[in-house]
Amino acid sequence: MSRSHPSVHPLDVAAPPSPSTRQQHDIEQNNVFPPTRVSMKDIQGTPGTSTSLALRCLQFSFAVVSLAVMATTSDFPSVTAFRYLVAAVGLQTLWSLSLGVVDIYALSVKRCLRNSRVVTLFTMGDGITSTLTFAAACASAGITVLIGNDFDNCAQNHCTRFETATAMAFMSWFAISPSFFLNFWSLASR
Amino acid sequence: MSRSHPSVHPLDVAAPPSPSTRQQHDIEQNNVFPPTRVSMKDIQGTPGTSTSLALRCLQFSFAVVSLAVMATTSDFPSVTAFRYLVAAVGLQTLWSLSLGVVDIYALSVKRCLRNSRVVTLFTMGDGITSTLTFAAACASAGITVLIGNDFDNCAQNHCTRFETATAMAFMSWFAISPSFFLNFWSLASR
Repeated sequence: MSRSHPSVHPLDVAAPPSPSTRQQHDIEQNNVFPPTRVSMKDIQGTPGTSTSLALRCLQFSFAVVSLAVMATTSDFPSVTAFRYLVAAVGLQTLWSLSLGVVDIYALSVKRCLRNSRVVTLFTMGDGITSTLTFAAACASAGITVLIGNDFDNCAQNHCTRFETATAMAFMSWFAISPSFFLNFWSLASR
Repeated sequence: MSRSHPSVHPLDVAAPPSPSTRQQHDIEQNNVFPPTRVSMKDIQGTPGTSTSLALRCLQFSFAVVSLAVMATTSDFPSVTAFRYLVAAVGLQTLWSLSLGVVDIYALSVKRCLRNSRVVTLFTMGDGITSTLTFAAACASAGITVLIGNDFDNCAQNHCTRFETATAMAFMSWFAISPSFFLNFWSLASR
């Protein structure tokens, strides 16, 4: 297959192939894009780029701070939403760390991850972890506002720590959203 | 302009225009896409299609039920998260109703909304309203679980109503997510 189809080839202007044949051919080659399309390599933020690595570092840092601050409060296990926050940012930490390592490897061997299956997997993972982190942050924010504003009961609770952990979870979500949308965009614009 | 460029025209195979010229030309025409691309018309769920109208009806119905159930509880104004839920599903109701009317108009005049500015506007609106609705649903879920499970205090609160309103808000979010992702996909794949 690779012998009959060179990796870089001009479009046949005299007899252009049908769209379905061309798309099938692109999928088979996995690294050939017609010259009129933007390739995944051109989008900063997709796996294997320095922007992606920077975003992973931010996600990981905010998630770790959120996890550490919430886990060190003595009464977080008594509230379901706070337990869920710890679980969600824990998962976020592991995911961002893993993809950060993949980015470092890709940058060190100067290889851009343009495989559509890999990008699909990363997009799905980003979508799931960002949704879980955002849900946990919102639930914690609801409880924190209830304790602080509605009950005005911060004297008996660690309001500042709850607020810090919630804010860090939101920041982690802000950092993962560009990763998700850039990967999704690069998948759709293939 | 419309006289010099017919609305449907074949690509000039002997001397194909450059990608930038072609894209500019497509933007000017607003309803012509080169035959090698998938046009917005082909994606069900984008504005002006029956799938889009069905999704808008679902979003609107769930949001209205959520709003009605939460607004009829006597003690919702005492909790910030519940007030926020009422505001968020209220906005969701208005947005889904407006876009449902646009879809009905587009279907009645058999005109598909393929203008990229319109789709960008709808995608941004969908993204904002879905995020607000999801955040409100998560915050309300956190409070509802706190009252029901952690405090075990359902005797003095309308736990069933709070749970119903929260569940309906989540269902509304489930219905708006396909609208958002299909619009985003159609924008990216243009």
